[in-house]
This record gives sequence, C-alpha cells and structure tokens, in this order.
Amino acid sequence: MPETIRPLHTLATPSTAPPDPRSYGVGARFSLHPMTTDFVPVILDALTAADASALEVVTDDVSTFVQGTESDVLTYLRDVIAAAAATGVHTVAHVLLSRGCPGEVACELRDGDPYAPTDLPALAPTGLRAAAHWSLYPLDDGDAATGRGDHMAAIYAVIERAKERGTFTRSEHFATRLDGDLADVLTTVGEGWLAAGRVVRHVTSHATISLNSPSPAAGA
Amino acid sequence: MPETIRPLHTLATPSTAPPDPRSYGVGARFSLHPMTTDFVPVILDALTAADASALEVVTDDVSTFVQGTESDVLTYLRDVIAAAAATGVHTVAHVLLSRGCPGEVACELRDGDPYAPTDLPALAPTGLRAAAHWSLYPLDDGDAATGRGDHMAAIYAVIERAKERGTFTRSEHFATRLDGDLADVLTTVGEGWLAAGRVVRHVTSHATISLNSPSPAAGA
Repeated sequence: MPETIRPLHTLATPSTAPPDPRSYGVGARFSLHPMTTDFVPVILDALTAADASALEVVTDDVSTFVQGTESDVLTYLRDVIAAAAATGVHTVAHVLLSRGCPGEVACELRDGDPYAPTDLPALAPTGLRAAAHWSLYPLDDGDAATGRGDHMAAIYAVIERAKERGTFTRSEHFATRLDGDLADVLTTVGEGWLAAGRVVRHVTSHATISLNSPSPAAGA
Repeated sequence: MPETIRPLHTLATPSTAPPDPRSYGVGARFSLHPMTTDFVPVILDALTAADASALEVVTDDVSTFVQGTESDVLTYLRDVIAAAAATGVHTVAHVLLSRGCPGEVACELRDGDPYAPTDLPALAPTGLRAAAHWSLYPLDDGDAATGRGDHMAAIYAVIERAKERGTFTRSEHFATRLDGDLADVLTTVGEGWLAAGRVVRHVTSHATISLNSPSPAAGA
C-alpha cells in the first residue's frame, strides 16, 4: 500500500551548519548527446558557453563532473544544456546529482545530521521546452532513534512539490515524467534533491532530459 | 570512514520463492543516443534487431520501458545497444535497472524478504568495446532486527566483484568507471544489481555506456 504522504518538514530538523560542497560531496555528473554528426562542436561550444568560474569541472570520454554549490551547479547545467539545445538539434542530457557521499565510493560523512540549503533560487526560464524522466534516491540507512528509514516518504513529498510547480506529468515505471521549460524541469529536480537532502544525508537523483525531439510528445 | 567490506552472503539469506518480474517490479528503462543526423533509423533498427518476444517493451519520446526476467532484460539491452553501435556511429546508452518497487512511485512490495535469482547467465561477447559510468542504489530502509541499514556495504561488495570480472577501471566521483566488451560491462552492472537485490528489496542501478567515442579513453 502507498505510504501516507507526510510533509518533509515534519521528518527532521535540518542542521544549521553549512558544510562546503566539496566536503559534503555536492555535485553533478552529466552527459550531453546532440543527435547530429557534428556533435563534437555542439558539445564543446555548450561547455564553454556556461560560466564555470565558481565550479570544478572535469570532462572525460563518458561524462562531465561538476562540483560546487547547488545553485551554481544547477545554473551551469541549465546554461550548458540550453546552449546545446539552442542549436535546434535534438539533444538529450543525462544528469546525475549527488550529495552526502563525498569520498567517491566511500561515504566518509555518513554519520551526522543531513544538510541542505533552505532555498534554491528559481532558475530563469530558457524558452526551451524539455521532457524528462526523473528518479530520486534518498539512500536512507534508517534512523537510530526510530530504527527504520522510509526512503519513499521523501519521494512522495517531492512529487507533490513537482505537482505544485506544474512540471509533473505522471508517474511512470521507475521514473516520474516532467514537462516544461528546461529551467523549471531542472528546478524541480534540484528542489527534490534538496528536499530529500534535508532528511537523508546521501541523496542522488537522475534525470534524462530531452529537447527538440522529433517524436510526438507522450507528455502534457 | 569507509566501511569494512563484508561478503554479501553474510548479510542475509535470499528468499527461495521467486516472484514474477511484473509483481516484483523487475525491469529497465533505457535511452539510446546515436550521435548522427540519421539517428531515427539507427534507433528504430536497433529496437527491432533484438528479440523482445519474452518482454513488455514500451517506447515513448524520452525512453523505453522493458519488463521481464533479469536475464531477458539484460540480453535485450545488449542486443539493442550492440545493433546501434555496430553501425560505427558514436552511441551512448543510458540504462536504469530497477527491482522491488513494482507500483511505480508506490513500492507495494516494500515489506518482506528480498529476492534475486542466484545466477545471471553471462552475456555472450559482442566484440564492441564500451566505457561506462555506473552507479548502484540499494534503497535500504534498515533492518527491523538490527535497527540500521548499510547501503554502502552492498556497494563495496559489488565493486569487489567488478574487480574480479576485470571490468573495474576506477572509482570516480558519484560513479564507478567500467571498461570492456559491452556484454561484460552489462553483466557487471546486472550482477551488481542482483547481488544488492539479495539483501535489499528496492535496488536501482544507472549506467551511462559509451561506444565508438572519438575522445581519447580516460579508462583502462
């Protein structure tokens, strides 16, 4: 049976001490797929079109790692993906957001209070319509006081927030369908990541974001 | 501090009653990105090249949903991705595997013993070299007996198995780098999903798999 939806603020009180992004493992890994034979300049131009001055950005042959504050990371992702999609080419981005597991595979900050900034500034619209399949993973090992975690409670709360924002289209198998301006889709994903991150330390989120698709939208 | 690595078989005894894939929520969602202006026929030909007779397959404008047994799902993914990459076009596939959460956002099977088949038949090699960024998410809400879960223990054990298989290249931020024949990379991802699935009910895994990349490999 589905769980009762509880507002996130009833689940825990966030810590007030803000750790820096690197020590808390805040960042993203993303890949950009412009479906054109000339994909190399589209990707390289998009990567240079966005302001990375506040971020650590490392690109390899599979994906690009981005570390910095939540707001800076999401703004950079919006600008890179928007630059590629502004070419008109059908472009898909795959975005992984992570927090609370800084040491690569080893989560050296596992114990302690979860932390996430209270507010994520809404990203300015891009004028580009995006469709996304989105998944959120609060990696909750259970609470020492209650003895059990409940990773689905955070997911239900976040989906309610996406409905309020207007980007929610429907629940799919293994993912939630979002539609809207690229900025609103990314804001929804970022908000969900932070909301879950206020009650669970290690939280990841994945989104496959499609723009300029020639296929009929299955969405809104 | 990193956890001590414990063999998965010491963590729990798997249930012997095999639920069917639909009732247990076993399946995949994937997207295929051939970086060519002629991407539509490459995708459509790849989807029809693979045998889907034992599977439910639903494609929309963002991704393709696949439901069936673990072995059938992974064989289908190998065949679809191999067919696209056999064109020689730089192709990236993003694969999401999920188990133990059948009711879309509602995990109706949350309580009860985890189940995963003991053996996953190794996939026959494709002759196609793949590089992947791989993440595994055991969504462990904690054990009623011990009072705490430990989602990282399953991850460490699975990474050790990837090292034995020879596909492990290194740990990256938020992901593990795998290199090898496409079949070996998918077998590694599938084995990890099943190994974690023997101790945790709701387990997902994501992999960004790149073939025919013109970029110098950052890998092995």
